[in-house]
Amino acid sequence: MLATVMYAARDVRVVNVPDATLVEPTDAIVRVTRSCICGSDLWPYRDMAPSESGQSMGHEAIGVVEAVGREVGRIRVGDAVIMPFAYSDGSCHFCHEGLQTACIHGGFFGNAGFNGAQAEALRVPHADGTLFALRQQADPSLWASLLSLSDVMGTGHHAARVARVGPGRSVAVIGDGAVGLCGVIAAKRLGAEQIILLGRHPGRVALGREFGATDIVSERGGEAVERVMALTGGQGVHSVLECVGTGQSMADAASIARPGGAIGRVGVPHYEGIPAAPTFFKNVIVAGGPAPVRAYIDELLPDVLEGRIQPGRVFDRTISLQEAPAGYRAMDERDAIKVMLQP
Amino acid sequence: MLATVMYAARDVRVVNVPDATLVEPTDAIVRVTRSCICGSDLWPYRDMAPSESGQSMGHEAIGVVEAVGREVGRIRVGDAVIMPFAYSDGSCHFCHEGLQTACIHGGFFGNAGFNGAQAEALRVPHADGTLFALRQQADPSLWASLLSLSDVMGTGHHAARVARVGPGRSVAVIGDGAVGLCGVIAAKRLGAEQIILLGRHPGRVALGREFGATDIVSERGGEAVERVMALTGGQGVHSVLECVGTGQSMADAASIARPGGAIGRVGVPHYEGIPAAPTFFKNVIVAGGPAPVRAYIDELLPDVLEGRIQPGRVFDRTISLQEAPAGYRAMDERDAIKVMLQP
Repeated sequence: MLATVMYAARDVRVVNVPDATLVEPTDAIVRVTRSCICGSDLWPYRDMAPSESGQSMGHEAIGVVEAVGREVGRIRVGDAVIMPFAYSDGSCHFCHEGLQTACIHGGFFGNAGFNGAQAEALRVPHADGTLFALRQQADPSLWASLLSLSDVMGTGHHAARVARVGPGRSVAVIGDGAVGLCGVIAAKRLGAEQIILLGRHPGRVALGREFGATDIVSERGGEAVERVMALTGGQGVHSVLECVGTGQSMADAASIARPGGAIGRVGVPHYEGIPAAPTFFKNVIVAGGPAPVRAYIDELLPDVLEGRIQPGRVFDRTISLQEAPAGYRAMDERDAIKVMLQP
Repeated sequence: MLATVMYAARDVRVVNVPDATLVEPTDAIVRVTRSCICGSDLWPYRDMAPSESGQSMGHEAIGVVEAVGREVGRIRVGDAVIMPFAYSDGSCHFCHEGLQTACIHGGFFGNAGFNGAQAEALRVPHADGTLFALRQQADPSLWASLLSLSDVMGTGHHAARVARVGPGRSVAVIGDGAVGLCGVIAAKRLGAEQIILLGRHPGRVALGREFGATDIVSERGGEAVERVMALTGGQGVHSVLECVGTGQSMADAASIARPGGAIGRVGVPHYEGIPAAPTFFKNVIVAGGPAPVRAYIDELLPDVLEGRIQPGRVFDRTISLQEAPAGYRAMDERDAIKVMLQP
């Protein structure tokens, strides 16, 4: 079967690999209907050290279950499923608490020996805990939004939840990538009154406005902070959704948070420390991490199925699986927000 | 009148200063009944640059109101009062939200032009917002505990609240100083099941046990982390109360927090960054800052008045105001937990 493998920075190829097969009795094989390229895939795309064996890529998919191991009970062959970016057993106390990304038997696809989803099919460990089965085959017009529930929409929602977005609150979303844009959707959905999107790409911020952003701040660094302060009567925002993961974005987040406010971090940190003093003296809450998107599908799915939110619009390009390398290039050059792959 | 002034590291003197007088119409003059030396006073005691004018010291007091400005309404001459370490107008939106330490007209005693409470009397700005008037003169046996509501007990409570301590939760308290010990009281009071106190001073940890600590960890650094993990089935604690403020204590806090747990920081940060990666990958909440102790007096006072909590026991030495320099020495040498001053 075909799968996307990264061998070094800027060296991604679609190659023939052995077919996905059941290994553990709790596994399922999912035939991929749609997968996609993640902003986080761009980190290795930019700095991966060469590897002869390569790294299987991709952690977001919707698909159809093709086979199940003998201990799989809830998931059945033929089920249309959403595959969250993390696998989880569904039975440990972290899973019961809704923090599946801390599952004691869990892990991440396209990582540490597990193949990725930018492929024709893949093995899904702990299928009963990991996969979310849709009750019916969904209309193809919904596929993009359903796919977003495997990562970016759930991640934007996580940022908003842990940053305590709620009715009447002011929100700043740092980052105009797919996660930031989903953060705007999440903030709007949770009742935020003011949603300031910090981003510069004209097409992305335009989509952000359609999703509910009330203000766009396109300045950088200190000037961006000044603009947000001016937009909030000098006080800063109740909630910051940090959807980038650099030291600069985290410093900006700490600067624009209102005293008593909260920062929801979902950008994988490429910085050592969260600014200790400003967050302390303002009593700002810093929360977030890998989103337990599995836990959020129940809440978000009805809004997707009934068209109240359309996170699938962050996919502004759909290409065949074979064209994945061009998809990486397009996202790296900010020519596409997020690329969907069609096996 | 007599007041305590710091002129340089290890140079604290009790000197004659002009009597406290009303300046603003919203001021009150409080005659100090008891004040005390704070662990945070030891930071300048150890590293203050020489100053000819000196710095007036002290931010915790109970006392009796001696005079009020013409715009003071709620507070009256003769009232017995608790003076929180921060002054606040009581009317801005931060005060209404219970975050008086972010009051837009607020500030801290013994700081930036405002005199301190290690004195015979002091001027209290925004008296109506700042001072908590007791309905009756309290029995002297309660004075120490009432004094603790001006800072350390409210601060320990803040750490516990923002670290989400609750029934059945496991808690680690980092630091066996007065705030850490009050954190133990707070954790116990809020229903924590397991309370691990990280501290080494025999007398302090013994008091911690009396306050409700179930386990004492006296190791340092990596060994302390290992002990806490062993005591919690390898998972870490739900809540960490960080009551020290060094890079090491913050790193330990990040290491021993359970996935999905929370760290309440109340030690003034003497470090640049909160460890970004471990808190992110475990989805650990980091919260805290200067405690809005004014907001907590309503909740804590009944327990003090009825003897259910005895935070005043952290005062293990009472000396006259004139002896304040010896009090600083005793606390610096960890010979006393917390020193009460009697003008």
